[in-house]
Amino acid sequence: MNHIELKNITKNYKSNCALKDISLIFEEKRIYGLLGRNGAGKTTLLNLITNRIFPTHGYITLSNHPISENDALLERIYYMTESTLYPDSMKIHEVFRWTKTFYSNFDLTYANGLCEKFDLNPNKKFKTLSTGYNTIAKLIIALASNADLLIFDEPILGLDAHHRTLFYKELLAHYIKTPKTIILSTHIIEEIADLLEWVVILGKQSVLINESVASLMERAYAITGKSSDVEAFIQNRNFIGLEYLGTYCKAILLDKPTEETLKQINQMGLEKSKVGLQELFIKLTDVGGVLYEIPKVG
Amino acid sequence: MNHIELKNITKNYKSNCALKDISLIFEEKRIYGLLGRNGAGKTTLLNLITNRIFPTHGYITLSNHPISENDALLERIYYMTESTLYPDSMKIHEVFRWTKTFYSNFDLTYANGLCEKFDLNPNKKFKTLSTGYNTIAKLIIALASNADLLIFDEPILGLDAHHRTLFYKELLAHYIKTPKTIILSTHIIEEIADLLEWVVILGKQSVLINESVASLMERAYAITGKSSDVEAFIQNRNFIGLEYLGTYCKAILLDKPTEETLKQINQMGLEKSKVGLQELFIKLTDVGGVLYEIPKVG
Repeated sequence: MNHIELKNITKNYKSNCALKDISLIFEEKRIYGLLGRNGAGKTTLLNLITNRIFPTHGYITLSNHPISENDALLERIYYMTESTLYPDSMKIHEVFRWTKTFYSNFDLTYANGLCEKFDLNPNKKFKTLSTGYNTIAKLIIALASNADLLIFDEPILGLDAHHRTLFYKELLAHYIKTPKTIILSTHIIEEIADLLEWVVILGKQSVLINESVASLMERAYAITGKSSDVEAFIQNRNFIGLEYLGTYCKAILLDKPTEETLKQINQMGLEKSKVGLQELFIKLTDVGGVLYEIPKVG
Repeated sequence: MNHIELKNITKNYKSNCALKDISLIFEEKRIYGLLGRNGAGKTTLLNLITNRIFPTHGYITLSNHPISENDALLERIYYMTESTLYPDSMKIHEVFRWTKTFYSNFDLTYANGLCEKFDLNPNKKFKTLSTGYNTIAKLIIALASNADLLIFDEPILGLDAHHRTLFYKELLAHYIKTPKTIILSTHIIEEIADLLEWVVILGKQSVLINESVASLMERAYAITGKSSDVEAFIQNRNFIGLEYLGTYCKAILLDKPTEETLKQINQMGLEKSKVGLQELFIKLTDVGGVLYEIPKVG
């Protein structure tokens, strides 16, 4: 069992509380999305899981063993971060060999194959790569590491639309071939929504959502209609967003609609529509004042 | 007139040709999207426009004056790039004052207002900022510069969904208040599609598309149906992509449908749907081998 468990985790930086009493399990062989606003504590959470920093309170286990007490456990986790950990002057194929000394299951053939697919020359030095290709090199190392748990912190920084599509496809192929726990932390939410099985949304210091994507998407819906009708409809319902456009109004609700609710929507002449994961995320993590509708130009 | 004209521009780096005989006009007071794959030459083009590098052949003018001969012209352009040009140890409000020595119209009140909206503390040092807040600081400096031409190279790197929405909104408000030429170069295409009036798509070394977004979107459409029907339909039409799913097939066409075409689609029982800018971009710049459909998990 390769699950990670966080038990009552609090992390303070001096007087600043980054995470407060969080309990959370990342089950094995599941693809997770870890979402949150800038500063919500996503990177802190990932640094804790990978033992790079230590919790102020609480404890973390991997396969029921304390993560802090066994370096061997950490070899089962590969953590791809924004920062590069290898000497800049190393060539990519040298980094492959270097990584193999830490991750004995590192698959050199697979890594070279991915280089070809992504059109990355492994004889290049890391420091000569553009932002996009720097990301690609790090993605390849993570996938080829064959660790039991793969963690990606902002995996698509600087990638063009083709390379993003290719990465999603290769990640899924890798997962299907060798199922493992994968945690994706990214701000480009809509594109990965189809990949995710489970989503963890961090609010300020705490967990807002920890749920399967299927269940969350079943609960979320939007209602559009005349403002007075929509306002009447949302009474005593769990609505998380409200936008006005002239005399019309759109409400986002998080509340699986019952048969009766659907009947009511019909009777009131309201329109029901789907809500995407990114829109849902924005509403859930809105802390006031920064959300606007974008008017059309021209 | 603040238009930029590139006339027969070629740029070689040693034996490597980045741009080949490109002629292009960026009209004044228009919002442009400059799109292209990693390595297509977008940044080379922007560096040429801002006189940071020089063309191998051809010339560039701003308001009909050669851009290479007049430093004063360059003060009318603000170019936000991925790299930071100020000393890392400067505080943000110091960078504001420093920028004002180059851009005399820099609006300090506006800059401070934006800091508040984006929740950025101007007393922080640049080097202490996260990727997201580093981007935010640079966006604020660009907007407040009040230059006649604003160029953004990957303006949303590391921004969360809220901050991206806020940036798009503020950019548009800025444009409506003081119309100017704005060039946005980004890989996150779908989100900015509504903002753009005009799109320039670079292929390998050359310009693939230089067209208003409205006209391009009018030309682009998708046809879905039985493979044999779709294959018959696309004969002698300008199709740019074809995907198979079992016995069904989807074709992307770039060819404004005539009345007759619409009739034919109906008669053949085919389904016509819209194509988003990002999907269109992927098809147009596909160089073979890197595109796949993402299967659903579970």
